[in-house]
Amino acid sequence: MEFKKYLTEQCAVVEQSLARYMLTEQGPLAIHIKAMRYSLFAGGKRIRPILALATAEALHAETKHLLPVACALECIHTYSLIHDDLPAMDNDDLRRGKPTSHVVFGEAEAILAGDGLLSFAFELLTHPDVQQGISPVNQIRMINLIAKAIGPEGMVGGQSLDLAAEGQTIPFEHLKLIHGCKTGALITASVQAGAIFGKATEEQFAALTRYGMQIGLAFQIVDDLLDVEGTTKDLGKTAGADVSRNKATYPAFFGVAETKVMAGEAVDAALTALEFFDAKAEPLRALARYIYERNN
Amino acid sequence: MEFKKYLTEQCAVVEQSLARYMLTEQGPLAIHIKAMRYSLFAGGKRIRPILALATAEALHAETKHLLPVACALECIHTYSLIHDDLPAMDNDDLRRGKPTSHVVFGEAEAILAGDGLLSFAFELLTHPDVQQGISPVNQIRMINLIAKAIGPEGMVGGQSLDLAAEGQTIPFEHLKLIHGCKTGALITASVQAGAIFGKATEEQFAALTRYGMQIGLAFQIVDDLLDVEGTTKDLGKTAGADVSRNKATYPAFFGVAETKVMAGEAVDAALTALEFFDAKAEPLRALARYIYERNN
Repeated sequence: MEFKKYLTEQCAVVEQSLARYMLTEQGPLAIHIKAMRYSLFAGGKRIRPILALATAEALHAETKHLLPVACALECIHTYSLIHDDLPAMDNDDLRRGKPTSHVVFGEAEAILAGDGLLSFAFELLTHPDVQQGISPVNQIRMINLIAKAIGPEGMVGGQSLDLAAEGQTIPFEHLKLIHGCKTGALITASVQAGAIFGKATEEQFAALTRYGMQIGLAFQIVDDLLDVEGTTKDLGKTAGADVSRNKATYPAFFGVAETKVMAGEAVDAALTALEFFDAKAEPLRALARYIYERNN
Repeated sequence: MEFKKYLTEQCAVVEQSLARYMLTEQGPLAIHIKAMRYSLFAGGKRIRPILALATAEALHAETKHLLPVACALECIHTYSLIHDDLPAMDNDDLRRGKPTSHVVFGEAEAILAGDGLLSFAFELLTHPDVQQGISPVNQIRMINLIAKAIGPEGMVGGQSLDLAAEGQTIPFEHLKLIHGCKTGALITASVQAGAIFGKATEEQFAALTRYGMQIGLAFQIVDDLLDVEGTTKDLGKTAGADVSRNKATYPAFFGVAETKVMAGEAVDAALTALEFFDAKAEPLRALARYIYERNN
C-alpha cells in the first residue's frame, strides 16, 4: 500500500466532509462562523478523523456514514487548540503557521469560536446521517465515550493539570497522567469511535483501544521531541515553547536518545495490538509508523 | 397547588441529583473539579432543569430517569455564565452574590471549568440511567436538539452577536434575534427535552415549543427590566450593567412601562400554548407566572 497516497486521499475526504457539514458564513452570525472556519480550515493533519475512518475500515466497514463523526473529532481537536492558545493559557500567537484565533478575532470571539466548535461537534455526532450506519444504542455509547475522553477526566482535565504543573517539579507518573488525559484520550476515543461504528467484537475493541493508547503515547512523546528538535517553520507553532516554559517533557526526563527509543517502543506495542487484524488494518499500521516519523 | 412548595421541592431534587452525578473533588484533578463545582453549586435557581422535569410531568411521565438530562442542562447553563463573565467577555466580578470563577480560580482555570462543564453535560446526556426512560432514537433526537440550541446558531452564536452589538445602534429585530439565541434557545430546548422524554405527540411538542419560546422571551425581557429596576443585592450580579455598557435592551427600546406589558403578553401567550393540557401542567403554568414575577 502506498501510504502517502492513502493519507492524501483520506485527508481530502475529511476536508470535503468538513466543507459539507460545517456552517457557511452568512447572515448575522457570519463573524462567529468565520472564526470557527478560520481555525478548522487552517491545514490540520486530520489525524483524529483519519484514525476513526481507518479503524472502521480495519473492521471491513463502509465508512460513509462515519464522516460526520470524523468531522466532529476534528471540531473538538480544533476547539482545544483555540482555547489552549489563549493568552490566559499557553499564550501562543502562531498555530499551523498562521496567527492564532485570538490574534485575528480577539480573545472574546476566540473563546466563543472554541465553544461553538465543541457544541457543533455534538450536533454532528447526533447528525441523522450517522444513524444510517450505526444502531442508536451504539451511537449513544460512542458519544458517551467521546464526551468522557474530552471532559474533566480527559482532555480538559489534562489541560488543567498541565497548567498547574508548569514550572513545578513533577514525578514521571504525573507527566504520564497529563499526557494520557490531554492528548491520549481523544486519540484513543477516535479509534474507539471507529471501532464501535465498525461493530468490533469485545476482543477487537480491547485490541483497538490498546492500539489507540499506544499511538496516543507515541504522538505525545514525538510532540515533546519536536519541541526540542523541530523548527518553528516545520511545526507551524513556536518551537522550544516547552523548554522556555520549563515544562516537564519526556526529553527533560530521559534525554533525547532514550526518548526516541521509548517512542519506538510505543509504536511497536501499537503494532502488536493489531496482530490479529488482516490487511485491511494496513492503514492503521502505517498511521502508527507515520506518527513516529512525522516532523510536524 | 402550592407553587412555592413545588419549586422548593423540585429545586431540592435537582440539587440532590447534581450532587449524585457530579464528580467529587479528589485525586490529581481536584482543583479542576473544585472549579466546576464552585459555580455549579453557587445557588442557581435551577429553572432549566425544573422546566424539563415539569414538562415531562405535564405529559404524565415518570421523571426519575430524566434527572441526568436535567443536570446536564444546568451544567450547560453554568458553563455559559462562567464564560460570559470572563474578563474578555462581560468582565463581571459578581455572580449569584459570589465572586466569579475567574476571580477565584484565575482566568485559565475558569475557561477550563466552563469547557469541563460543557463536555460533562454530554456525558450526562448519554448516561446509562437516561436510557431506562427513553428510546435510544429519541435520546439522540433530544441530544441533537440541545446541541443545536447551545451551538453557533443558538446560545454561543447569541453571545457572539451580543458582544458585537455592544455600543452599536441595532434595530429591534436584531435585539430579538440576540435574545432568542442567547437565552431563549436553551430555555426552549429544556422544555423540548422534557417533551421528548415525556413522549409528546407532534401537536403537544409544537405547543410545548411555543410555550418554551414565550417563556424564554419573557425571561429575557424581565432580565432586562431587572437590570434597570433590580438591586445588586437582589440580583446577585451587578445591577445596571446593561445600561453602563450601553446595551440594547427592551426598556431602552420601549421604556419600562411598555416593556412590562410586553413581558405580560409573552406569559399570556405561553399560558395559551398550554390550553389543551390538563392539571398536570399546573407547574408549567406557575413557572411562566414565576418568570414574570421573579426579582432575581
